[in-house]
Amino acid sequence: MTTRLAFLGPPGTFSEEAALKYNPNAESVPMSSITAVASAVESGMADLGIVPVENSLEGSVTETLDVLVHGAPGLSIRDEAVLPIEHYLLVKPGTKAGAVKVLFAHPQALGQCRGFVERCFPNAAIEAALSNSAAVEEMMSREGSAAIGTRRAAEIYGAEVLAKGIQDRSPNVTRFVVLDKEDHQPTGDDKTSLACAFVVEDRPGLLVGALKEFSERGINLSKIESRPSREKLGTYIFLMDVDGHRSEEPLATALEAVKGQCSFFRVLGSYPKYRAS
Amino acid sequence: MTTRLAFLGPPGTFSEEAALKYNPNAESVPMSSITAVASAVESGMADLGIVPVENSLEGSVTETLDVLVHGAPGLSIRDEAVLPIEHYLLVKPGTKAGAVKVLFAHPQALGQCRGFVERCFPNAAIEAALSNSAAVEEMMSREGSAAIGTRRAAEIYGAEVLAKGIQDRSPNVTRFVVLDKEDHQPTGDDKTSLACAFVVEDRPGLLVGALKEFSERGINLSKIESRPSREKLGTYIFLMDVDGHRSEEPLATALEAVKGQCSFFRVLGSYPKYRAS
Repeated sequence: MTTRLAFLGPPGTFSEEAALKYNPNAESVPMSSITAVASAVESGMADLGIVPVENSLEGSVTETLDVLVHGAPGLSIRDEAVLPIEHYLLVKPGTKAGAVKVLFAHPQALGQCRGFVERCFPNAAIEAALSNSAAVEEMMSREGSAAIGTRRAAEIYGAEVLAKGIQDRSPNVTRFVVLDKEDHQPTGDDKTSLACAFVVEDRPGLLVGALKEFSERGINLSKIESRPSREKLGTYIFLMDVDGHRSEEPLATALEAVKGQCSFFRVLGSYPKYRAS
Repeated sequence: MTTRLAFLGPPGTFSEEAALKYNPNAESVPMSSITAVASAVESGMADLGIVPVENSLEGSVTETLDVLVHGAPGLSIRDEAVLPIEHYLLVKPGTKAGAVKVLFAHPQALGQCRGFVERCFPNAAIEAALSNSAAVEEMMSREGSAAIGTRRAAEIYGAEVLAKGIQDRSPNVTRFVVLDKEDHQPTGDDKTSLACAFVVEDRPGLLVGALKEFSERGINLSKIESRPSREKLGTYIFLMDVDGHRSEEPLATALEAVKGQCSFFRVLGSYPKYRAS
């Protein structure tokens, strides 16, 4: 049976590119929000869901972190994937750069390509679009216009690529996580994501105590981030990525020890480390 | 002389609201990017700059973090301010809700108000705008339309408030920092922001060692976040907020000890803790 893979739609976004790259044979299921992707997997409407978790320029995608920590108790991270974010300048086939009077763009994409736009199209009128995909759709129905869009949106709408890699800063990559009802079996090169909070907040001793459980066992910490807890301003939940699989030593013992020190503790999943192939 | 306060424009955005709240008597200087706000202060075009640093729903504003860590060596944080983010539904004076056929919104604001829009305006055509301010400006020139905007944009453009607090989740607050050439004198209730990195990355022992310098002295850690360093994927800079002023004990000694363990170390500034008044 074909795997049904939910992603943040509409088709033509970077999330769809990530879904296609992760599993080119899956039946893709576009959803209207990250929370809806999680619901699709929980309810069985999709087998897997892929959601963005952090971008190298924009930082963490907090909706995803919040779904992982507070929502979706039946879901785990079973994989991760990294997608280079490349913005394209797209036009209707045959349109020359000199004929471009209007530029359609999602405000975030425009922000990432501001230098290019100011250098090459200083006089174009900018029209905002609701998504990278909508920008391309609107461009195709307006003469003398261009759009900032994805390679995938160019395919879908039959647009011509006038320029590629027009973002101001590189590398610009987004890390996605794949959600499933269970996490991944050990592969020998895994990482584990977890979330925890402490009874008495704002006390560095408690965080240090927890981190020592990892460091004393030689377990690498590849990411740490504090997120405001929803209950009270100034109290935090810590999100961490550590090396190893939750079912294998030395991580299994370390996690037990950390759990004992926390008021809130949740393993979000163990999964193979992403390796660019 | 009137203080010149740079902020992320255009007028009518939440950044302008924060600037007005921070200093109602300042001459406000709108800039086109966060980096430009920093440049305005560094070059003397403005006396102070106010920039968003984290939102309770959206997370950290990475452009601000990057400016603080990598750019603007002559700038420090001299203050912080917290602004509740309230979205308003605005119309041309006299327009009734039943007459609204088109809704202008910045995609991010639309995302935060999706529930309200789906319940109350399920059939409105959505038009994207480049900023919360542009949404209101465009609405004012189109009959039968509404916009998601700020209270300040309503004042500027003479719009009527049809509904307030239309965001799906509350509290939604943004923390801003005020940039200056020097940080703040001690007030007795301060915090200090710092950034550091370690020679050998990915080793939890190094971070634990640094955090212990704070915990052993009873210094609270109110925020910690790892940001990818620009040099190499998988290496991190840690951003922390700790209690106390860098010039006072016990923090002064702790900072010296941490500095000795880091390959990169920078105090971003000491400033009074924000208290809602």
